[in-house]
Amino acid sequence: MMAKPFKRLLLTGAAGGLGKVLRDRIKPWADVVVLSDIADLGEAREGEEIVVCDLGDKAAVMKMMEGVEAVLHFGGISTENTFENILHANILGTANIYEAAHKLGVKRIVFASSNHTVGFYRNTDYIDATAPTRPDSFYGVSKCFGEQLASYYWDRTGLETVSLRIGSSFPEPKDRRMMVTWLSYDDLVEALRQSLFATRVGFTILFGMSNNDVAWWDNSKAAHLGYKPKDSSSQFDASFPDSGQYPDQNASVTYHGGAFALAEVRYKD
Amino acid sequence: MMAKPFKRLLLTGAAGGLGKVLRDRIKPWADVVVLSDIADLGEAREGEEIVVCDLGDKAAVMKMMEGVEAVLHFGGISTENTFENILHANILGTANIYEAAHKLGVKRIVFASSNHTVGFYRNTDYIDATAPTRPDSFYGVSKCFGEQLASYYWDRTGLETVSLRIGSSFPEPKDRRMMVTWLSYDDLVEALRQSLFATRVGFTILFGMSNNDVAWWDNSKAAHLGYKPKDSSSQFDASFPDSGQYPDQNASVTYHGGAFALAEVRYKD
Amino acid sequence: MMAKPFKRLLLTGAAGGLGKVLRDRIKPWADVVVLSDIADLGEAREGEEIVVCDLGDKAAVMKMMEGVEAVLHFGGISTENTFENILHANILGTANIYEAAHKLGVKRIVFASSNHTVGFYRNTDYIDATAPTRPDSFYGVSKCFGEQLASYYWDRTGLETVSLRIGSSFPEPKDRRMMVTWLSYDDLVEALRQSLFATRVGFTILFGMSNNDVAWWDNSKAAHLGYKPKDSSSQFDASFPDSGQYPDQNASVTYHGGAFALAEVRYKD
Amino acid sequence: MMAKPFKRLLLTGAAGGLGKVLRDRIKPWADVVVLSDIADLGEAREGEEIVVCDLGDKAAVMKMMEGVEAVLHFGGISTENTFENILHANILGTANIYEAAHKLGVKRIVFASSNHTVGFYRNTDYIDATAPTRPDSFYGVSKCFGEQLASYYWDRTGLETVSLRIGSSFPEPKDRRMMVTWLSYDDLVEALRQSLFATRVGFTILFGMSNNDVAWWDNSKAAHLGYKPKDSSSQFDASFPDSGQYPDQNASVTYHGGAFALAEVRYKD
Amino acid sequence: MMAKPFKRLLLTGAAGGLGKVLRDRIKPWADVVVLSDIADLGEAREGEEIVVCDLGDKAAVMKMMEGVEAVLHFGGISTENTFENILHANILGTANIYEAAHKLGVKRIVFASSNHTVGFYRNTDYIDATAPTRPDSFYGVSKCFGEQLASYYWDRTGLETVSLRIGSSFPEPKDRRMMVTWLSYDDLVEALRQSLFATRVGFTILFGMSNNDVAWWDNSKAAHLGYKPKDSSSQFDASFPDSGQYPDQNASVTYHGGAFALAEVRYKD
Amino acid sequence: MMAKPFKRLLLTGAAGGLGKVLRDRIKPWADVVVLSDIADLGEAREGEEIVVCDLGDKAAVMKMMEGVEAVLHFGGISTENTFENILHANILGTANIYEAAHKLGVKRIVFASSNHTVGFYRNTDYIDATAPTRPDSFYGVSKCFGEQLASYYWDRTGLETVSLRIGSSFPEPKDRRMMVTWLSYDDLVEALRQSLFATRVGFTILFGMSNNDVAWWDNSKAAHLGYKPKDSSSQFDASFPDSGQYPDQNASVTYHGGAFALAEVRYKD
Repeated sequence: MMAKPFKRLLLTGAAGGLGKVLRDRIKPWADVVVLSDIADLGEAREGEEIVVCDLGDKAAVMKMMEGVEAVLHFGGISTENTFENILHANILGTANIYEAAHKLGVKRIVFASSNHTVGFYRNTDYIDATAPTRPDSFYGVSKCFGEQLASYYWDRTGLETVSLRIGSSFPEPKDRRMMVTWLSYDDLVEALRQSLFATRVGFTILFGMSNNDVAWWDNSKAAHLGYKPKDSSSQFDASFPDSGQYPDQNASVTYHGGAFALAEVRYKD
Repeated sequence: MMAKPFKRLLLTGAAGGLGKVLRDRIKPWADVVVLSDIADLGEAREGEEIVVCDLGDKAAVMKMMEGVEAVLHFGGISTENTFENILHANILGTANIYEAAHKLGVKRIVFASSNHTVGFYRNTDYIDATAPTRPDSFYGVSKCFGEQLASYYWDRTGLETVSLRIGSSFPEPKDRRMMVTWLSYDDLVEALRQSLFATRVGFTILFGMSNNDVAWWDNSKAAHLGYKPKDSSSQFDASFPDSGQYPDQNASVTYHGGAFALAEVRYKD
Repeated sequence: MMAKPFKRLLLTGAAGGLGKVLRDRIKPWADVVVLSDIADLGEAREGEEIVVCDLGDKAAVMKMMEGVEAVLHFGGISTENTFENILHANILGTANIYEAAHKLGVKRIVFASSNHTVGFYRNTDYIDATAPTRPDSFYGVSKCFGEQLASYYWDRTGLETVSLRIGSSFPEPKDRRMMVTWLSYDDLVEALRQSLFATRVGFTILFGMSNNDVAWWDNSKAAHLGYKPKDSSSQFDASFPDSGQYPDQNASVTYHGGAFALAEVRYKD
Repeated sequence: MMAKPFKRLLLTGAAGGLGKVLRDRIKPWADVVVLSDIADLGEAREGEEIVVCDLGDKAAVMKMMEGVEAVLHFGGISTENTFENILHANILGTANIYEAAHKLGVKRIVFASSNHTVGFYRNTDYIDATAPTRPDSFYGVSKCFGEQLASYYWDRTGLETVSLRIGSSFPEPKDRRMMVTWLSYDDLVEALRQSLFATRVGFTILFGMSNNDVAWWDNSKAAHLGYKPKDSSSQFDASFPDSGQYPDQNASVTYHGGAFALAEVRYKD
Repeated sequence: MMAKPFKRLLLTGAAGGLGKVLRDRIKPWADVVVLSDIADLGEAREGEEIVVCDLGDKAAVMKMMEGVEAVLHFGGISTENTFENILHANILGTANIYEAAHKLGVKRIVFASSNHTVGFYRNTDYIDATAPTRPDSFYGVSKCFGEQLASYYWDRTGLETVSLRIGSSFPEPKDRRMMVTWLSYDDLVEALRQSLFATRVGFTILFGMSNNDVAWWDNSKAAHLGYKPKDSSSQFDASFPDSGQYPDQNASVTYHGGAFALAEVRYKD
Repeated sequence: MMAKPFKRLLLTGAAGGLGKVLRDRIKPWADVVVLSDIADLGEAREGEEIVVCDLGDKAAVMKMMEGVEAVLHFGGISTENTFENILHANILGTANIYEAAHKLGVKRIVFASSNHTVGFYRNTDYIDATAPTRPDSFYGVSKCFGEQLASYYWDRTGLETVSLRIGSSFPEPKDRRMMVTWLSYDDLVEALRQSLFATRVGFTILFGMSNNDVAWWDNSKAAHLGYKPKDSSSQFDASFPDSGQYPDQNASVTYHGGAFALAEVRYKD
C-alpha cells in the first residue's frame, strides 16, 4: 500500500459548512488529519485528531500546529460581521496561523479566500488574478489581508500559499449569480488537491469555480496548478429559465460579490 | 405551460438571408414576433406580425416598435454598396431604431454587426473586442457606426446592446477563410439566445463564430454571456484538403474581412 | 525665399470659431489657402480663395477640392444637434470630403475630431488612442464615424489622416474641466503643423491638449508626430482656487466630455 | 481675504516625523487644523486644536472627528514592529478613522501609505498603481490593509481616498536607494494639496516621490491629480559618487522596500 | 488518387530522435521526402531520397535543396554542447538553410525550435510567444538565433516560418516537468501538418506541447494555425503520484527549461 | 583626489567611429583604459593600454581581459556585411568576450547593440524593450544574438549587461530619420556612465537616443538607470524644413532601421 502524502495535515474551520464537506474527503492525503474549530467537532474518527481552538489565541495555534506539514486554512468567520469580530477571527487568526507555520517549518498553506475580495467588479468585468482587489465587505477586506500576508511570507520566508478565492460552493446554485460562481464539492476537492500537490506554487491565486458556461474569472495566472474543473452549473439551467425580465429586480447579479456588494455597512456600535 | 419570455419581439431584416433562417427559430422566445423588412415577407403565420417598413422612415419605425420589448436588428444592407445607400439603410435606419427603442422603453437590442468592422486585420492577428476597429468597406464603417451609437445609448440611457459581429453564417463554409469565420445556424441562434437572456449585458461585443479549429477572435470580453458554440467547421475539412499552394492565389484569406478587404472603392457617381 | 510647402491647402469650416483663428496662421504653409464654409467668409485676402459650400453637396465638394494637396477638415457642426443635422453636415459631409480626396489624389487630411469621441470616460480614467471610443452625443458619434472612415481610406487607399481629438480650444479655460482639456491656439497650430508635415502618419489619433498639469489622455501612440505642447493651463490656476467643495456641484468635471455627457438626448421630432 | 478651503481639517500622527513637518504647512488649508497623536503635541497654536488620542479607541476617534471635513491620516506606527502593535495602531486605528469618517460624512481622506506595500519588487521592476502589492513587512501589510479598506469605503459609500505611497521623505537622501525614493518636504506638501483639492479622486493611489533621475514607480494612473514634483534628488549626486562596486555590499538597493525587504521576521513572543 | 501536397519536402536531422519518428509519418505530404543528416540514414525507401550532408557546408546545402518546396528543419545539435559545436551546426547550419531557401524560392520552413529559448522562466510564469526570450544554454541561444533569422527572412523576403518550440517529445514523460512539457508524437505530427498547410503564417511561434493539465505556454498568438492537440500527459498521472515532498529535491521543475537551466556553463577549453 | 571607479576598463572596437569618440571621454572612469581593436590604434597615451586583437581569437580575448573589471563592448562589424564576416566578428567575437568575462569574474558589460535589432518596425510603431525583436539585416540578427547571450549569462552566472541599442550617433543628423534616432556624443557618454555605475542592472535594454521631439522608443523599462538625455535633434530643425512631399521619395524613414530595412539580402557567394 502506498504511503499517504502527508503525515499530519491541518484543516481549520472543520465544523463549518465546507469543513464538514471536506472532513472525509481529505483523509487520503494524510495519515492524520488534524481538525480544528472553535465549535464542537464531535468525536475524532480514525485518522483524525480534534483540536478545539480559538485561532486568535496564538499559543493555542502554535501548539496545535506542531508536526503539521501543510494546512487547509478554512477557519474564521465566513460571512459579513462586525469589524471587531472579523478583526479577531480572520485577521489575528490568520496572522497566528502564518507565524506558527513559519516558525514550525510548514511548507504550504491553502488559504480559503473568497470572491468577496473582488466583489465590487461588475458582471461584465472579466478579470484575472492580477486585477486590483475590490473587496465588498469587512469580510472581503479580511480575505485581502490574508492574501497580502501570504504574499509577504512567501517573499520573506519561502512559505508557499495557494489562495483559493471560493465562489459559491454548495450542492447546487441558489440563484442566477451562483450559476456563474458555483463550485461543486468535487471541483473544490480537486482544487485543493492540485493546490496541495503541485510541485511549486509560490504565492498563487486560484479562482474557485466549476466549468460553468458564464465566467467572470480567468485562471490563466494559475495555469501551473493544472486545475481542470469537471462539473458545470449548466446542469441546473432548467432551474433558471430564460426571461425577458432584466437585472434590476435581482441586482445581486450585477456585482461579482452579489448581495454582499449591495449590503449596508455594518459595524458594532 | 411556461409563459414565453417576451410578449413582442422585433426582428428587422426578416426577409434577408439570416432573417429567413431565424423566422421560425425565434418563435419560442415571444408570444408575437414582429417581422420587418422593406421586401415582401409573405403571409403572417401564427404568432407573427408583419410590417413592411423602410427603416429610414422614422415615423414608420416608431409605429412599428410600439409595445416591442426587445429587438433583433438584422435590417439594412448586408454587403458593400454605394455610400448613399449605406447611409440611408444602415446609418439612418439604425439611428431610427435606437431612438425609437429609447423613446419607447425597449430594454435590449441585439445588433447584427459584422466581421467587416475589423476586416483589415491580417489573418495572423488574434484580436478581442477592445481592438480598435479597422473597417474594410462602407458597409463595415456603417457597422462601426451602429456600435458607436449603441455604446452611446448605453452610456446615456441604459438601453443595452449586444453587438454580434457575425462571421460567415451559411449552411457550410464556401472557402478556406470561412473555415475560420463560419457560424453555424444553430450557433447563431444560441448566440442570440444568450444575448437576449443574459442577465445584464451593458454594451457587449460578441464575435459570431462557431468552435472552429482556427480562430482570429477572442471572446473573453464577452465571457459574461456564456456563449459556447457547439459546431465546428472542422466537419468540412475534407472540402479543403492540405495543399502546398500558399496564400497568394487566394488572397481572401489574408484579411479578416476576406474579399471585402481586397475590393475596389465603390461610390455612386 | 523658400517655397511654401503646399500650393493649395484647404481649410473647411473656416468661418467657425477655430476656423477664424486658423485663417491667418496657416498662410505660411501654402501659396493658396482655400477657405470653405457654409457661412459667409467675407472678402478673400491675398493668398486666399473662398468657397461657400455645403459639404453635403458632393459635386460642390469635388469641385472645391481640385488641385488641393492637403485638407484641414474643420467643417460641419461642432456641438450637439439633432441627428438629422449631424447626419447631413458631419457624416455625409465628411464622406464627401474623403471620397473627393481619394479621387483627386489628396495625400493627407487632418480631421478635427473631438474629445467627445471618448466623452463617457470618467475623470479618473487615463486613456490612450487605442481605448475603445465612448461617445457622449450624436456629435461625438459622428466624430467616431469620421475616424472610422479615415481608418478605412488609409487601409484601402493609402490616404493618410491625423485625427486631432480637440479638447477645449479657447483663449483660456472657462471651468475646472477645461483646466484639463485646454488647448491653446498656439499649441493647436503646432499640432496641425506636426500633423501636416510629419513624414508618414498612416491613420494617427492625436489628443489635442496643451501641457496641462492634469491629463486624461496619453499621446504616446502618436509619438511619431513629435507634438510637444508649449503652453499649460497652470497659468490660470488662480482662476480656480483650491476648494473643499467636491465634484457634485459641478458634475461636468466627472466625465471627459463634461456637460455633453450630462446632457439630455436630443432628436428632431 | 479669501476663505480657507476647509473649516476643520484633521491631521493624525501630528507628533511624528512628517507630522511635525506638516503642522505649519497645512495651516492655509483650514480655519482649524485638528492635530492628533498618542504622543504629546505641546501647546495648541492659533488655528490649531490638539487631541491626544489612541486611534484604537473607537469612541475617542468618533469624538475627535466631529465637524471634520477632510483627514490627513498619518497616524499609527511608521516602521516595522510586532504584529500585535501593528494590529492595534495601524489596522484597528485605520478602521476606526474610516468608520467615523463614513458615519460623520467626511468626504475625503488622504492616507499616508508606503512604498513598503510594494517593497518586494526588485529595483529593475518599474510598476504602476495596478501592480499587485508585495508588502515587505507587517508594516507594509498593514498599509495594504488600509488601502483595501479605503477601496471598500469608496465603492460602498462614496468616501474618497488618495493613498499616498510615501517613498523616503527626509531633508535629503541617506543612501543610494533614497536617491530613487526621495520625496522632498515641498513635494510632499504639494502631493497632499493636489490630493485634497482635486475635483474627484475616487480611490486613487499616488506614489510619493520627487522628480528623481531614477524612478521605480509610474504615476500615470494618478494623472488626474496633476501632481508635478518640483525637486529632484539629483542635487545630491555628489554625495554618492560613481563606483564600480556593485550591489552586493549594499543590498538595500535591490528591493523597492530597501532594508525592510531584508529584515528578519519579527513577532512578539 | 489525390496528388500529394508537395513534390519535394526536405527533412533535416532525419537520423535524430525525432527525425526517425517523422520519417514515415510525413510521407503522405510529398511525392519525395528528402532526408538529410550528417549521420547515416540507411537505405532510401520508396518515396525517399537521402543526402548525407554537413549543414555547415553551404554549397552542399544549396545542392541538397534544389527543387525542394518546403523544409522541416530538425537538423543540428539538439542538446547542450560546446559553443564552437553549436556555432557550426546550429548557427551556421541554419543560416545556410535559410539562405538556400531564399535563393531557391522555397516558400516555407518549419523550424524545430525549443522550450530552451525560454528556459529561464519559472514554473509559475505563464507566457505567450511575445514574451522576451530567456535562453538557458548555448543550445537555447542558438534556437533564439534561428528564430531571429527566420523573422528577418520573413520581413525581408517573404519566406515564411513556423518556429515550433518543442517541449519534450518522447513516448511518455520521464519526470514531473515533462508532465507539463510533453508533446506526443501524434501531436507533433499534427503541429507540423498545421504549420506546413496553414494558408498564411508569416513568422509564427508555436509552443509544441500536448493538451496537458498543467500549461506554462499560451498558444493564442498562433491561433491562426488551428493546432488542437489530442493527447494529454494526464494519462500518465499514476506514474507521478501526489506527494508532500516539494520542489527542492527535484529542482528541474522550477524552470521551464528544467535541468538545462540548472546546468553548469560549458565551453570548449 | 578621489580614486577612479575602476582599475581596468576595456573598450573594444576602440578604432571605430564611436570608439574614437569615447577614447578620451571614458578616461575619468578607470586608472587604465584597455583599448582593443583589430585595426591600428596608434600610440598608447597616458592611462591607456592598447591591444590589437581579433575578437574571434578566444585565447587572445582571454589574455586581453585579465584584470579587467568592466567592458564597453563596441567591437565587431558595425554595418551590414556577409554572413560569414558577421558570424566571425560579431557572433563568435561576442561569445568570446562573454565567456572570458564570466571566467575572469568581470561583473558588468555594456554591449553596443543597435536599433537594427528592431529595424523592421514601422515609424508609427512606438515600442519598448519588451517588444519582440525584428532585425533588418545579418548585422541586426547578430546584435539580437548578443542580447540573447547576455540574457543567458545574466540568468546563468549573474554577469550583468546593459544592452545599449544605439540609434544614430553622429555629430548631427544626416536625414529626417536621424532626427528621430539621433544620439549626441554627450548623451552617448552619459548613457554609458549610467549603464556602468547604476547599482544593479541585471540584463537591461536601453534605447540610445537623445531627447528628440519624435520618439519611436520608450525607455520606461530602463527607468532604473536614470538615463536623462540632455540634447535634442530639434536644434537641427532648420536643416529639414517642412514639406508637403511625403514619405515615398525617402522611404528610409518608413522603418526604424531606415535604409537597412530596404537593403538587398547580401551573402558571400
